[in-house]
Amino acid sequence: MPSSFKHRHLLDIERLSPADITAILDLAERYLKQKPGKKQTKLAGKILVNLFFEPSTRTRTSFEIAAKRLGMDVVNVMVDHSSTKKGESLLDMAGALDAMRVDALIVRHAEDGIPQFLAPQVKASVINAGDGKHEHPTQALLDALVMRRHKKKLKGLTVAICGDIQHSRVARSNIHLLKKFGAKVRIITPSYFVPQDLNKLGVEAFDNMKEGLKDVDVVMMLRIQHERLGDGEFAVSLKEYHRDYGLDHNKLKAAKPNVIVMHPGPVNRDVEITSELADDPQFSVIREQIETGVAIRMAILDLLLSGKKKK
Amino acid sequence: MPSSFKHRHLLDIERLSPADITAILDLAERYLKQKPGKKQTKLAGKILVNLFFEPSTRTRTSFEIAAKRLGMDVVNVMVDHSSTKKGESLLDMAGALDAMRVDALIVRHAEDGIPQFLAPQVKASVINAGDGKHEHPTQALLDALVMRRHKKKLKGLTVAICGDIQHSRVARSNIHLLKKFGAKVRIITPSYFVPQDLNKLGVEAFDNMKEGLKDVDVVMMLRIQHERLGDGEFAVSLKEYHRDYGLDHNKLKAAKPNVIVMHPGPVNRDVEITSELADDPQFSVIREQIETGVAIRMAILDLLLSGKKKK
Amino acid sequence: MPSSFKHRHLLDIERLSPADITAILDLAERYLKQKPGKKQTKLAGKILVNLFFEPSTRTRTSFEIAAKRLGMDVVNVMVDHSSTKKGESLLDMAGALDAMRVDALIVRHAEDGIPQFLAPQVKASVINAGDGKHEHPTQALLDALVMRRHKKKLKGLTVAICGDIQHSRVARSNIHLLKKFGAKVRIITPSYFVPQDLNKLGVEAFDNMKEGLKDVDVVMMLRIQHERLGDGEFAVSLKEYHRDYGLDHNKLKAAKPNVIVMHPGPVNRDVEITSELADDPQFSVIREQIETGVAIRMAILDLLLSGKKKK
Repeated sequence: MPSSFKHRHLLDIERLSPADITAILDLAERYLKQKPGKKQTKLAGKILVNLFFEPSTRTRTSFEIAAKRLGMDVVNVMVDHSSTKKGESLLDMAGALDAMRVDALIVRHAEDGIPQFLAPQVKASVINAGDGKHEHPTQALLDALVMRRHKKKLKGLTVAICGDIQHSRVARSNIHLLKKFGAKVRIITPSYFVPQDLNKLGVEAFDNMKEGLKDVDVVMMLRIQHERLGDGEFAVSLKEYHRDYGLDHNKLKAAKPNVIVMHPGPVNRDVEITSELADDPQFSVIREQIETGVAIRMAILDLLLSGKKKK
Repeated sequence: MPSSFKHRHLLDIERLSPADITAILDLAERYLKQKPGKKQTKLAGKILVNLFFEPSTRTRTSFEIAAKRLGMDVVNVMVDHSSTKKGESLLDMAGALDAMRVDALIVRHAEDGIPQFLAPQVKASVINAGDGKHEHPTQALLDALVMRRHKKKLKGLTVAICGDIQHSRVARSNIHLLKKFGAKVRIITPSYFVPQDLNKLGVEAFDNMKEGLKDVDVVMMLRIQHERLGDGEFAVSLKEYHRDYGLDHNKLKAAKPNVIVMHPGPVNRDVEITSELADDPQFSVIREQIETGVAIRMAILDLLLSGKKKK
Repeated sequence: MPSSFKHRHLLDIERLSPADITAILDLAERYLKQKPGKKQTKLAGKILVNLFFEPSTRTRTSFEIAAKRLGMDVVNVMVDHSSTKKGESLLDMAGALDAMRVDALIVRHAEDGIPQFLAPQVKASVINAGDGKHEHPTQALLDALVMRRHKKKLKGLTVAICGDIQHSRVARSNIHLLKKFGAKVRIITPSYFVPQDLNKLGVEAFDNMKEGLKDVDVVMMLRIQHERLGDGEFAVSLKEYHRDYGLDHNKLKAAKPNVIVMHPGPVNRDVEITSELADDPQFSVIREQIETGVAIRMAILDLLLSGKKKK
């Protein structure tokens, strides 16, 4: 397909144009409508490497399935203590994989900026699968497609993102994307989770769910990123947190009647959202997000790798 | 192939009919006779996920090879502490994989009943690869095929299962299967390994190998499931255990001259069986069991997934 | 392709003839020139198992990519404490995989001689991916191809191997190979890293870099194998070690002007080699070694498995 999409890497939402994003969403929508089961060969002979420095089952699996559905071969490289014992640098490891002429490096890392650091130094296409507290672009793209399918457009929507905004790369990527399309973004978060660069984000901040949820079209709940919290940063009990910042059917009444409830997963049931609401098909689109994730990643691989000049 | 096999999942032996089991064994026998080496495409485009909550090399590998021989793509998900840190529930993880439209979930778990719990909640076919002390149906099916190939029938055979019956899902699945086909099943086990539901199992129990092995057609040795034993549950030395409940050529003389010796593996050499006997091709069919296991799993995948309506 | 290569396994360099080695290098050179991207099916339907008892990202990945480029399916088996808990022997594990009718077993182990021990006991082709301090034949083959491409021949070259020779299987395989082709091999190593079988190796030993590097065509740097060192075996600081045995542009002036600098990786930057030199395209061929490694492994798989009689 002819496309205006000219990128070699997918590093963040911030540097994508609305046209780029629309190209990804449109192609993903086509993949979403395809029945699975027929082996595709569009990217046969190409190799994707999942280079994950943080453990992840869902995102790794989603990329792996997306790649295999397009006929790619997949190599998983999970980096833990055993392999860093030999003292190999991050760049040397990525460089080694690149020297093996792989086509895509899917990079997840606990530090901000690693995929962006690697991209100019390798021939493979780098896709950011989450870097520190910075961005998680494929998550925001799949979230946008789910919103667009339910609301027909992004422009003019009011979206509340609720929870641990400070440590959330998902929030950051979603904010960038939604603002590019003219959606209004609110964050609902306790004071200890307010991001330091709040003013730059261009969002409206609430510390009260009832006010923040008023008349929203979409509410996106986030889990507390315990693994990114310093000692003492989270001093309330989970019960108190749930009372004040956990979503339930009652609090949701403040939103529009046809509100959809999203969560990037994994869900901590009865912490940031009640189990009942997470499973309520009237509001929750959480499973649909996961399904859409594979289609988004297929679209991205297709756009980045089809017709790419061989090295 | 037209078949009376109508199941969507393979959860245990207990609920399979003799006709179901025969359909699996017959198809597996055809796969066993095929030369490997030609890539099959019967299930191309379909995705199998090994969702293992207990470590296993053999069973995981056997399913992986079976699936790949049929042209499937395979995704391995080994769940350990790192991924449970995020607090995701078992059902949410299985549900996430299911939302990615995979075709088969192969589930192994240290607790009884997990595959049965998951099956009604997912669209994928669930195959039980061992749940706690409950069942390990694919093992019993491969064992049955090995017995049938050697003895031409199951009806009327006398089979002794010897060792840690209490903690063995392999024993339980084999007992169910053998009784459905009219075989006589004995268990030979010390008092501390007698299963609590002995009366329900419908087997004859022995605590003495010489008596228990008398005139048997098949003897199946089990390893001690140390990982499922509480403190103090196993108080004898391995040497004493071997003396009383370890199989050797001498004890085997009580059995029929053409007895076959089976073991689900991995073998603890010179504990439950002497190394010499485990490797003696006159009696031991242990390697044949492993080879047959791939064919059984191919047959099961074929029966469950071929012609299945797409979701 | 007709070939004089008649081996069923690739276990070490020592027992390969120069004709065998030339057959591998020539075929690898053809693979190296091929553009990637087109899915090959030459070995489709065959299964390679990476059976690794030592962690390794690069070598495992290189074999995996080589196999997939030829259309093979790959199964990874990383053996750690969790799987040895069940008490399974090494041979039983390899035998189990073999019984599943796999075609190639790629074996890496911390002890010398394991692949050679397994080979006569299995039907699959065994490839040594590094055994203890003994050999790492695929590394020496890829190194030889890189040297041949740069120097047009191996005969008459002077090659200095520098660093922890005592614990290096890479050094040993390279020494065997280079001597078969009439190259002169020097080792440059501190007294505490001199191998015990120095006299048998037939190399010239230096403990001074300036002298050892004089007029060499090739210098191959090795990392310190900390994981194979006993307590107190390495008593100098890394800084001292770097001063005396680390390669930099200044020390390299003793070599021929067109010298190439090699390293099997992973590199410990500023320990055995300066970061600047490792990345200097005028001298360093480290990335080319990695790229060549995939081609060498494709050639080996092709030679061992093409036309092999099915079991």
